[in-house]
Amino acid sequence: MTAKIMTAQPLVEEIKKDLKFRCESLKSRGVVPSMVVILVGDNPASLTYIRNKRKMCEEVGATFDLLQLPSNVSEKEFQDHVIRLNEDKKVHGIIIQLPVSDHLKKLDLPNMVSHTKDIDGFHGINTQAIYTGKIQSNFFLPCTPKGIINLLNFYGVAVAGKHVVVLGRSLIVGKPLSMLLTNLNATVTLAHSKTENLTEITRTADILVSAIGKTHLVTKAHINPSKKTVVVDVGMNTFEGKTAGDVSPDVAGVAGFISPVPGGVGPMTVVSLIENLITATENQIKG
Amino acid sequence: MTAKIMTAQPLVEEIKKDLKFRCESLKSRGVVPSMVVILVGDNPASLTYIRNKRKMCEEVGATFDLLQLPSNVSEKEFQDHVIRLNEDKKVHGIIIQLPVSDHLKKLDLPNMVSHTKDIDGFHGINTQAIYTGKIQSNFFLPCTPKGIINLLNFYGVAVAGKHVVVLGRSLIVGKPLSMLLTNLNATVTLAHSKTENLTEITRTADILVSAIGKTHLVTKAHINPSKKTVVVDVGMNTFEGKTAGDVSPDVAGVAGFISPVPGGVGPMTVVSLIENLITATENQIKG
Repeated sequence: MTAKIMTAQPLVEEIKKDLKFRCESLKSRGVVPSMVVILVGDNPASLTYIRNKRKMCEEVGATFDLLQLPSNVSEKEFQDHVIRLNEDKKVHGIIIQLPVSDHLKKLDLPNMVSHTKDIDGFHGINTQAIYTGKIQSNFFLPCTPKGIINLLNFYGVAVAGKHVVVLGRSLIVGKPLSMLLTNLNATVTLAHSKTENLTEITRTADILVSAIGKTHLVTKAHINPSKKTVVVDVGMNTFEGKTAGDVSPDVAGVAGFISPVPGGVGPMTVVSLIENLITATENQIKG
Repeated sequence: MTAKIMTAQPLVEEIKKDLKFRCESLKSRGVVPSMVVILVGDNPASLTYIRNKRKMCEEVGATFDLLQLPSNVSEKEFQDHVIRLNEDKKVHGIIIQLPVSDHLKKLDLPNMVSHTKDIDGFHGINTQAIYTGKIQSNFFLPCTPKGIINLLNFYGVAVAGKHVVVLGRSLIVGKPLSMLLTNLNATVTLAHSKTENLTEITRTADILVSAIGKTHLVTKAHINPSKKTVVVDVGMNTFEGKTAGDVSPDVAGVAGFISPVPGGVGPMTVVSLIENLITATENQIKG
């Protein structure tokens, strides 16, 4: 058996086509969807992510601006920029690119961006909606969890009733994904660096999502071949000069489905962000 | 082997002693901690819960008031009562006893009570703190999860690294408990009524918490005896005219620890509520 590869490309193209159409409609009403990324410093990984966001943003016809601030920007100046962008009617989506400099980490970053422009889905209002499962229309799902759920759905992987083991409890992926999957009737185990007996747990998984960020952490020992496990790889690690996922190549021999790195969760995350931007723009016009 | 019984009584007495002391200190400063429970209608189970809350509240020296509203109370009148109590400086803790009448369910009940008086720990600010793990000092843990964690701690049950399977995904128990345990480095599986292969999952549990509300749902088939599983029973069901938990009596023969019903999680929940009341009062005086 060789796992079926869940390439993002066909789904990304489908979503982009829809987003282009919605973007054209907005332009015909005189509105150009516009996002601003605030970058503090010049972290090279951040610059790569930003390049991917800019590319897809421009491909669908939206405007992308980068506000790059020096790594020693004062707290006050940083906050003033966010307040100004929150108030600017020509800006529909705002991202604070993580990580920021240490001296800014004590700020309440998730709640600083207006929740109507929070296309990352990190605001408390969005968090509470995920947590309670009472999801409103003018609400933004965080991009990586949203991308993963859409990718599974596209490849016909049902989650209801299934045991999903999520590795990694970050606020960007693991925690929101676990809550969203619970709301979709999956049985979710949230495992992490402190988990004992990881293999015992992963071998009971129907779906295994790795968002730990360690090259080839997941090996075929973690998979029970009779389960035809669906493996989703969120890792974006650098290994021998190349991008590598959390999942070792030997897993392809024992899993049922696998998402590739690159070309899997990464592009799904970016297209989900642009989708949030278009939705934010539409909502802001509707008022 | 017979499971060790985790009776709440000794811990409840210890906490009550501390609460009495703090209550006396507050009284010597001229402040009597005071809570109000808003009850809509006359649900018999609610009346039992309220009786338990009143009893422990009065035992530590705090004031308890019941505001009973007719089941057809208007939305406006209901909201006006909450607003009045939020503003009343003599009231330090407010509970909206659930369930409320159907016509009130569309209200944003968790965020209606001021978060400084939200001794149930249901407000969005409290929820976000649990979710992010950034727990502030003037923050209230929801009472049942708090009581469970304190009970485990009292009986020397470590949670870090352990696999905890929680049955039931309510906003009152399952979801907040799963997040709190994750923050304490447990590996948490949140299972529920739609879970397939439940037994396979529960047999890998080091700690099994049942908050489903079905009499004797958990049987010895769910337990792997070699694990010496710690079983926490949150059920408060009526069975043959008596209070019964979710856990079948045969589990005592295969588990390592078990919390009794009655006399386990129930009293821990009530004492946690009264602790939140005393903390709320202290915080409101500190300002």
